Amino acid sequence: MAEPRLRPPDPGAVRRITSLTNPVVKGVRGLWLAKNRRASGLFLAEGLKLVMDAVEFGWPLRRLVFATGRDGGEHLDELASGCRKGGGEVLEVSEAVLAKIARRDNPQTVIGVFEQRFRPAESIEPARDSTWIALEEVRDPGNLGTIIRTGDAVGAAGVILVGDTVDPYSVETVRATMGSVFHVPLVRADHAGFAQLAAAWPGSIVGTHLAAVDDYRQTLYRRPTLLVMGAERSGLGEPTAALCSDLVRIPMDGAADSLNLAVATALMLFEIRRDELRLP
Amino acid sequence: MAEPRLRPPDPGAVRRITSLTNPVVKGVRGLWLAKNRRASGLFLAEGLKLVMDAVEFGWPLRRLVFATGRDGGEHLDELASGCRKGGGEVLEVSEAVLAKIARRDNPQTVIGVFEQRFRPAESIEPARDSTWIALEEVRDPGNLGTIIRTGDAVGAAGVILVGDTVDPYSVETVRATMGSVFHVPLVRADHAGFAQLAAAWPGSIVGTHLAAVDDYRQTLYRRPTLLVMGAERSGLGEPTAALCSDLVRIPMDGAADSLNLAVATALMLFEIRRDELRLP
Repeated sequence: MAEPRLRPPDPGAVRRITSLTNPVVKGVRGLWLAKNRRASGLFLAEGLKLVMDAVEFGWPLRRLVFATGRDGGEHLDELASGCRKGGGEVLEVSEAVLAKIARRDNPQTVIGVFEQRFRPAESIEPARDSTWIALEEVRDPGNLGTIIRTGDAVGAAGVILVGDTVDPYSVETVRATMGSVFHVPLVRADHAGFAQLAAAWPGSIVGTHLAAVDDYRQTLYRRPTLLVMGAERSGLGEPTAALCSDLVRIPMDGAADSLNLAVATALMLFEIRRDELRLP
Repeated sequence: MAEPRLRPPDPGAVRRITSLTNPVVKGVRGLWLAKNRRASGLFLAEGLKLVMDAVEFGWPLRRLVFATGRDGGEHLDELASGCRKGGGEVLEVSEAVLAKIARRDNPQTVIGVFEQRFRPAESIEPARDSTWIALEEVRDPGNLGTIIRTGDAVGAAGVILVGDTVDPYSVETVRATMGSVFHVPLVRADHAGFAQLAAAWPGSIVGTHLAAVDDYRQTLYRRPTLLVMGAERSGLGEPTAALCSDLVRIPMDGAADSLNLAVATALMLFEIRRDELRLP
């Protein structure tokens, strides 16, 4: 029996790499580090579903990396074809190279490289019914990712990162967003820019504060609502607290004297949403 | 000028160790691993405040480790003296040894070794107004720690770990509890034991479920309330869901199709608490 005729590979279409020290591999792998993400404006997303989701939400794939022999099925073919059409590069690598890039054994099927997106604070024109989240100097990648994910779940219009925060495009944060990093607009602002935004804000600016008197459940949140949350250990800085129209507290029992930041933010977001639902 | 007279050291009081390969150091450091925690029944807690908090809440210090030359002040002296009185061992180690045990540079001032505590499921007799949390096969150490912390913040009576869950006494989980691991009783149960507990439960057994119809804000939670939450990826198993008197859902907008487990648990706990406050 004759050998089945194989379609000749298109050398321009897929680049095959098996060397761990290949410069392209090193470049992709380097995106674990904040300084390389800063310099390139790129970031990593792991997993077929996540990468497909990103593309569907209009994020062009700059690079698609997959392991030889892994069955990604038609979805992978589609991604690869879309990536090439958009001018991106498709890399077929060995299992060992993929594990190295993903920094773990048995990595996800594919890894995508995307361009970071930040909107300038000046561009925010809050829609009448919208909720925005501002985070001052948040430190923990998992917390930030979880807050972006929760913001997505309540239909928040965007997350504003105020001052020196952790990088929202770190692998840990992207992972914790469970894909919501591709749905929720991110804004970066310094303290002066945020103060300017706050000064012009038409609705409530709500912060949580340990010294606040008002119960978060007994406050009327005027729309558009801007929720401002402080850093994990220190809470809201006083200058930022002074920008708020409402400072509220989340009452606690027990011996714990504070809540996890992502938890406190979620309680506030769902309370603001409850208030929206209650209003005519 | 004469040399100042030094108080002669008490050789039985403090053990000084500078070797990274000392068996005691290896034993303490080994508590990062689940198998060693299982075999010894011990666990680590880092930081002066946390260790002091634990002792105050009645957890005897089995070992206290601190670095030579670090100023722990009178609090450290008190801890050391209490540790010795209770039959524990005080270890003074070099900075390098402490960093090795803590697995990081610039570790906290002290590390404490404590005995794990688990209550048997059969011992639970829920108080009339209490809220209990049951977690089925939770996987993420940070989520578990955050849930224990949130449980503490709402005055929950305890956390029941159902089936094969992550170890609540891992370093990551203890860290995420921010001390609440010393306040909130932990219970371990297999699925059969939990089914037995559920069968005899006098109040509501509430689970969240994607297929549920009832809004979590429109459900009356009868006390004592048992909140049952499923694993991160799969949610509640059907046999466990069948034990619930109420299945509820947390409605979402946006593109996110689920919430982080610790966030969902917090929303439920604060909703149950709101209901308690509303009731006469």
